[in-house]
Amino acid sequence: MVLQKLDRYAKALIKEAGTKIRHSFASELAIESKADANDLVTNIDKEIEQFFIKHIRTDYPEHLILGEEGFGDNLSTLDGYVWLLDPIDGTMNFIHQQRNFAISLGIYKDGVGVLGYIYDVMHDELYSSQKGSGAYLNDEPIPVLEPTTISEAIIGLNASWVIPNPYIENEGLIRLVKDARGIRSYGSAALELAYVATGRIDAYMSMRLSPWDIAGGAVIAEEVGAVATNLKGQKLQFLGQDTFLVARKSLHDSLLSNYISLK
Amino acid sequence: MVLQKLDRYAKALIKEAGTKIRHSFASELAIESKADANDLVTNIDKEIEQFFIKHIRTDYPEHLILGEEGFGDNLSTLDGYVWLLDPIDGTMNFIHQQRNFAISLGIYKDGVGVLGYIYDVMHDELYSSQKGSGAYLNDEPIPVLEPTTISEAIIGLNASWVIPNPYIENEGLIRLVKDARGIRSYGSAALELAYVATGRIDAYMSMRLSPWDIAGGAVIAEEVGAVATNLKGQKLQFLGQDTFLVARKSLHDSLLSNYISLK
Repeated sequence: MVLQKLDRYAKALIKEAGTKIRHSFASELAIESKADANDLVTNIDKEIEQFFIKHIRTDYPEHLILGEEGFGDNLSTLDGYVWLLDPIDGTMNFIHQQRNFAISLGIYKDGVGVLGYIYDVMHDELYSSQKGSGAYLNDEPIPVLEPTTISEAIIGLNASWVIPNPYIENEGLIRLVKDARGIRSYGSAALELAYVATGRIDAYMSMRLSPWDIAGGAVIAEEVGAVATNLKGQKLQFLGQDTFLVARKSLHDSLLSNYISLK
Repeated sequence: MVLQKLDRYAKALIKEAGTKIRHSFASELAIESKADANDLVTNIDKEIEQFFIKHIRTDYPEHLILGEEGFGDNLSTLDGYVWLLDPIDGTMNFIHQQRNFAISLGIYKDGVGVLGYIYDVMHDELYSSQKGSGAYLNDEPIPVLEPTTISEAIIGLNASWVIPNPYIENEGLIRLVKDARGIRSYGSAALELAYVATGRIDAYMSMRLSPWDIAGGAVIAEEVGAVATNLKGQKLQFLGQDTFLVARKSLHDSLLSNYISLK
């Protein structure tokens, strides 16, 4: 009951935030640079995070918030209820494309993901799940994923990890590019998680993601039988940056054993 | 006048074909393998090509057709009116995702592209142009592209070309991955051309494309000031497979001079 009420509340906030974002395209995007030129941030990012925080603080004052833009709480544990929010995941797409970005939200209770959401704002597609109750795309149940093999798989993998880089031995990923049926890169971890959950791609990995990028998607992915860990195969911990892998169960072991070797 | 009538006719065929494809998802996709496991083909591909050919043969009997599925004509020149058709560009996406594929059509007169179309079937987005009259997304004019730089650019580039491969020195592309703002890969040449034309990505390249993959998009891209050539910088010839590069004018030279070295 508590979770069902929280689920309705979170969905309403997400949909309202989506409407605000779509309207914002009418006004000019004010862009400023963060430390990394690849990590652009807009006023809209901040406004959307503040919109969520204002409502959560009022209606669920005992809940804590970990948000990309830093207006939430400083957390050292995930005790109690914690909202892990990326108001706009895929900021570069947001700025360059005005599409292919998402609102990503996970609600965790004592470290366990109980509600997960990925909202593809421009396509009005809300991926959601409540732990133990399956996953949904809008109101349609998402089927549990069937097994597949590397040679039949489409892998979400950015070319940045296939070139020599400080995080992973790229020889293994070069073999993966050769062995897989296809490689895609969409530029939004949350959407790529949603794509894995719906079977549009079969795995997605990245060397450096933050808790808010993956907290919502991890709940959804696990409900359809995908496995999400870091690239050492360890449980996700959601308190700091880490590597990330989500894949159909049948691919997850094979990817870790045969293709992934961290530096 | 002739072209305007032909434009209306082609658009009507494309829209009807799109409706057929959307309906086809109700019935199961019958998949068979071509020589390359990556080059899947479905019954729907063939049916859609035959649908176009039947109508064109009846209504424009003097026109020739070059189609991916091979039901059209064997051409040794592009004399007269020629329709260059890919009924489903992005077949792997079509099969795995049921989205992110397009109908790609260029109509050429004596080798010159006069009409170009890319129809993103599932998003109901029709990119179109008539040579000299600008380009449109549905009924909205697509703005002419502004200059940009490599460090601000998002490049459409599949990881397959960044690993050692028989076509291109991958060291140059490794530098490009480092220098560009971001890399994306969507798995449909036609849609990536449409993305370049609308400024969502800034360049797209591939080592091996067929005339029907790019004939429609080339007309659209040129109307908004993008430059489309092969990877030697030569004019596209549309009679056989070739390498391909489309980019904002300001990037095209820089990509060819500084990053691309064919084997």
